[in-house]
Amino acid sequence: MNNKNSVEVIINNKIYTICGFESEEYIQRIASYINSKYTEFKALEGYNSLSTEMRNIMLEINLADDYFKAKNQIKEIEIESEEKNKELYNIKHELIAAQTKNDSLKKEFDITKEDLSNAQKQLIRLEAEIAELKKQLHKK
Amino acid sequence: MNNKNSVEVIINNKIYTICGFESEEYIQRIASYINSKYTEFKALEGYNSLSTEMRNIMLEINLADDYFKAKNQIKEIEIESEEKNKELYNIKHELIAAQTKNDSLKKEFDITKEDLSNAQKQLIRLEAEIAELKKQLHKK
Repeated sequence: MNNKNSVEVIINNKIYTICGFESEEYIQRIASYINSKYTEFKALEGYNSLSTEMRNIMLEINLADDYFKAKNQIKEIEIESEEKNKELYNIKHELIAAQTKNDSLKKEFDITKEDLSNAQKQLIRLEAEIAELKKQLHKK
Repeated sequence: MNNKNSVEVIINNKIYTICGFESEEYIQRIASYINSKYTEFKALEGYNSLSTEMRNIMLEINLADDYFKAKNQIKEIEIESEEKNKELYNIKHELIAAQTKNDSLKKEFDITKEDLSNAQKQLIRLEAEIAELKKQLHKK
């Protein structure tokens, strides 16, 4: 880590000065996370009889395990996200298809309504013509 | 870690026997990840003059930092995923609305087509009636 923030943290009951680009809050969260591991370990049977070296290895492996588990979670969420993208893509296509169908249906419908209106007008004209013809027939 | 698999790993040029529920492959991946950290650190200026304790703290903080960054990535992906869920929900509703509109449009269209067909039949009948009336008028 390069010098920027100089932060005092307590890790496993010892004070360390940590220099880093991260915020003090972030560095304190990291220290607190490591301390929670020590608390967990100290409650385990046999931990206190381990050598400092073995305790360190145990902590390193445990931290790395958390990291790997988080990475696996990322992979799983990314797979889910990819599936959602595909679903979204398909539904967007279905929506466009439905909207296009709606538009063409509306156009056909409008033409048919126009045809019906013309036919109805023609019916009125023919009925009038029939009435007129009947009148003429009656007169004769 | 509880006993189950007993795996020999090399971490920082030392052999350790690790007991854990995880697969040997997973434990070896963890060891290899920790070793990559040591390789990185050893290339840094000043690392070799640090005490073992400071080297350990540096490694712990670095591993925890990777974990926190992965956790932040999870948070970000989860927010994105939530947004995708909302988008998916909205588009599904839009699709259902478009399909419902299509169905009702089709029903109205069918009724109008039926009306047009009836009007056209009626036109044919009236035209025939007119022709018949004209014939009768002509005869008289």
